[in-house]
Amino acid sequence: MATIKDVAKAAGVSVATVSRVVNHSPQVSQSALDAVTAAMKKLNYRPNAAARALVNQTTNYVGIVVNDASDPFFGMLITAVDKVIRQFDKQLLIGCGYHNANDERRALEFLINSGCESIILHAKGLSDQEIRDYCQRVRGLVIINRSVDGIEERCVSLDNYHGAFIATTHLIKQGHRQIACVASDQDIEDTHERIRGYSDALTQHGIALTQNYIESGTPTAEGGSTAMMNLLSKSLEITAVVAYNDYMAAGVFETLEENGLNVPENISVVGFDDALIAQFVRPRLTTVRYPIAIMAQHAAQLALALPSQNSTEITTSFTPTLVLRNSTATL
Amino acid sequence: MATIKDVAKAAGVSVATVSRVVNHSPQVSQSALDAVTAAMKKLNYRPNAAARALVNQTTNYVGIVVNDASDPFFGMLITAVDKVIRQFDKQLLIGCGYHNANDERRALEFLINSGCESIILHAKGLSDQEIRDYCQRVRGLVIINRSVDGIEERCVSLDNYHGAFIATTHLIKQGHRQIACVASDQDIEDTHERIRGYSDALTQHGIALTQNYIESGTPTAEGGSTAMMNLLSKSLEITAVVAYNDYMAAGVFETLEENGLNVPENISVVGFDDALIAQFVRPRLTTVRYPIAIMAQHAAQLALALPSQNSTEITTSFTPTLVLRNSTATL
Repeated sequence: MATIKDVAKAAGVSVATVSRVVNHSPQVSQSALDAVTAAMKKLNYRPNAAARALVNQTTNYVGIVVNDASDPFFGMLITAVDKVIRQFDKQLLIGCGYHNANDERRALEFLINSGCESIILHAKGLSDQEIRDYCQRVRGLVIINRSVDGIEERCVSLDNYHGAFIATTHLIKQGHRQIACVASDQDIEDTHERIRGYSDALTQHGIALTQNYIESGTPTAEGGSTAMMNLLSKSLEITAVVAYNDYMAAGVFETLEENGLNVPENISVVGFDDALIAQFVRPRLTTVRYPIAIMAQHAAQLALALPSQNSTEITTSFTPTLVLRNSTATL
Repeated sequence: MATIKDVAKAAGVSVATVSRVVNHSPQVSQSALDAVTAAMKKLNYRPNAAARALVNQTTNYVGIVVNDASDPFFGMLITAVDKVIRQFDKQLLIGCGYHNANDERRALEFLINSGCESIILHAKGLSDQEIRDYCQRVRGLVIINRSVDGIEERCVSLDNYHGAFIATTHLIKQGHRQIACVASDQDIEDTHERIRGYSDALTQHGIALTQNYIESGTPTAEGGSTAMMNLLSKSLEITAVVAYNDYMAAGVFETLEENGLNVPENISVVGFDDALIAQFVRPRLTTVRYPIAIMAQHAAQLALALPSQNSTEITTSFTPTLVLRNSTATL
């Protein structure tokens, strides 16, 4: 591979002059510009992004840490961020954190060491304190889908509590009182806040249910299916289910189907996320919309604005809404 | 941000010495190492990846160009590549090509200029010749999901023809003869090869159908739904449908449902891809499996092996298989 020295030699100029051409400096004569351009072409020299980054003390990368890109939820997040940053001629550098502190830390360190000044971090494994420390180191670090005390203005998050609250309230208004909760077994904020929203909605409507009505599982169709089996096994009288997410709701559908129970005639089901599958399952799933695309868009704008200390009026706190489809019915 | 010069000054050593420390050169005295490490810590200096890349003439990035990360198909591709390269301590640099030549070129140029020696390219807009040219420039460039003449050993691709052929043959063996094709309107190899596989299967079984039995649409549920409406409008006697992909098949389901036709009792439907939704639609979709995760894994291994000219025995040509579920039935 041709180096900057080779180009300088071929063009009969100094390395500094080649560097100035590569970095579009105005202090270059037309003759030097022509000679360097010709030499670069002849030697098939590619102005190295590393060299440019060193000169400009900045890179064109925007970093993003997601859980796992194969989950469509994170795919939507990635694409929404890409659509913002491509307008600024920036490119995505991606790390997968797989919901554990080690991988999240590794991905984040790599992005920082690669010179990313703007980073969108989805982390469920790192502690609040470690995230606060990273925020001090990296001015353009924005946290998505999590609210961390003390750095709220850097966190773009959803009110998970409210989402579960409106899902449960919707069922109560339809006359349901024996409402089970199919929860996630992940020990993250989302899990706890959604259970809290479910419980508070019941309490505020004078409904007292035991912990028996809550079953947890992995946040997948399989997990939802197993949790629903456990609920049915306990001989509880259940007329409705609030699921942690749409995959778990789809798993609930399967268990009910296998046990001859129809949705929504026998049991109503509400999901969470409004994932791709919500419109493909039958009946179409009533769910709580997680506006991940617009949240990611705001997170990207914030991450780009912070390093240059532009004052921003970017929304960081998002409210979920109910999407009514066909999986719930009045009792 | 502290620079390498600041560190050198604080440590009382030359910039070259700091550089040697950063790059783990053995030619550094213990006292210099201690002084530099202390100064780096004090100034919160981050050894810049750009600087290291310049010194080592290599980067830790592996590039990938996908169509659109929000499509779970590409999400699976990204994660499969990530799982390979993380074992080599490499990080993903991602570009979205959005199925058009300009965006694909822009993404690819960025990856090359960022020093990616290994790149996995999913491109449907770039011409064969342009891809061959890029392969000459970048030794570790691997093409996925496309076969380009002359560089077959760099192309990890699926036999689309065979996929549509086995889908159609499956229906014929079930007694169907009036088999419609819901095709994609994208002018790409995949579209043409799948139509060819469908047509050849019919011909080989002595079935002569007019072009009337083929309707195209966007490769989405909406496109499938519209194409199926057009087929029904033409008053053709149809007992089975081969769809371009699972989303189109789901759209076919919807149109049939709205018109009081049951799957598979009245009409059998086969999809393509074995996408996430294939198991969530009802009935569960019989489809052709696109083994994208294993293909991406092989592409990543090949892209890593090529620059070092390691001889590889990596499979590049993949064969789709039929996944039997509940959307097809004997006539």
